[in-house]
Amino acid sequence: MTELTPAPLLGGRFLLRRAVASDVQAIVELLVEDTRRAAIETAAPEARDAYEQAFQRVDADASQLLVVATDSSGVVVATMQLTYIPGLSRAGSTRLQVEAVRVRSDQRGNGLGGAMIEWAVQEGKRRGARLMQLTSDASRTDAHRFYDRLGFTASHVGYKLELD
Amino acid sequence: MTELTPAPLLGGRFLLRRAVASDVQAIVELLVEDTRRAAIETAAPEARDAYEQAFQRVDADASQLLVVATDSSGVVVATMQLTYIPGLSRAGSTRLQVEAVRVRSDQRGNGLGGAMIEWAVQEGKRRGARLMQLTSDASRTDAHRFYDRLGFTASHVGYKLELD
Repeated sequence: MTELTPAPLLGGRFLLRRAVASDVQAIVELLVEDTRRAAIETAAPEARDAYEQAFQRVDADASQLLVVATDSSGVVVATMQLTYIPGLSRAGSTRLQVEAVRVRSDQRGNGLGGAMIEWAVQEGKRRGARLMQLTSDASRTDAHRFYDRLGFTASHVGYKLELD
Repeated sequence: MTELTPAPLLGGRFLLRRAVASDVQAIVELLVEDTRRAAIETAAPEARDAYEQAFQRVDADASQLLVVATDSSGVVVATMQLTYIPGLSRAGSTRLQVEAVRVRSDQRGNGLGGAMIEWAVQEGKRRGARLMQLTSDASRTDAHRFYDRLGFTASHVGYKLELD
């Protein structure tokens, strides 16, 4: 995972930093709180190993950057994962893909999510990405308004296929 | 870029293999033939460096696998890029993302595209991915029927933001 200098967001109310192994449980809680599909995420102790192993895979991959945002007490209240994808299409553009954006429910609507995405735009530009992309569940209409407002274009259909 | 044993497709009519630097021009021609947006791809000689540098970035990244399919004469007639994305969401699932699927226009409708995606499904399972994902331009209605037929679910909206 790429290195990162911690960044203050919203005038220092929040701090965005690279996730470390001890953040995994807090990230899982954000995923569990906001899952769209029953049983797709779980806070059960026996699932902890799977999440921790996944963290190690992300942490070992130089194309990934998993971040958390903490409040003034240092509590993790939001997360997102950035993936840099080099490619030939679009005249050899590197894409910055955003996955797993989650903001704790009591912290939505306060500008934190927007500040995280704006930070990601700057970080992507800094690292030479020419396109940013993400998919959002079709049922998340609030999220769609959010990305529209941030200047994204809903130009594509996002397909998924479970391989289990 | 990950190693790959070449795979016969459609009973050996086509061979799928890892792309090499000398395939770049052929891949660019497939991208140019099938671009949805004017001037987003170009076969102009002065753009060749950008595509070749992009190939080197893909080739150096262990999470990427750029493949081509060749016909019985060894001519490149199709391409796609696979990206393995580890992550915490979906209980620590690794995703296999497919980008830049292109089949030469005179080779569409003969089963090659479907065989490539089916091959990718097996390759993703073999490497432990639990979700396959891709986005398709909203105007590509033929492609949507194609992915529906292959069992994909159009469950998401795909957002893009140009960073230039």
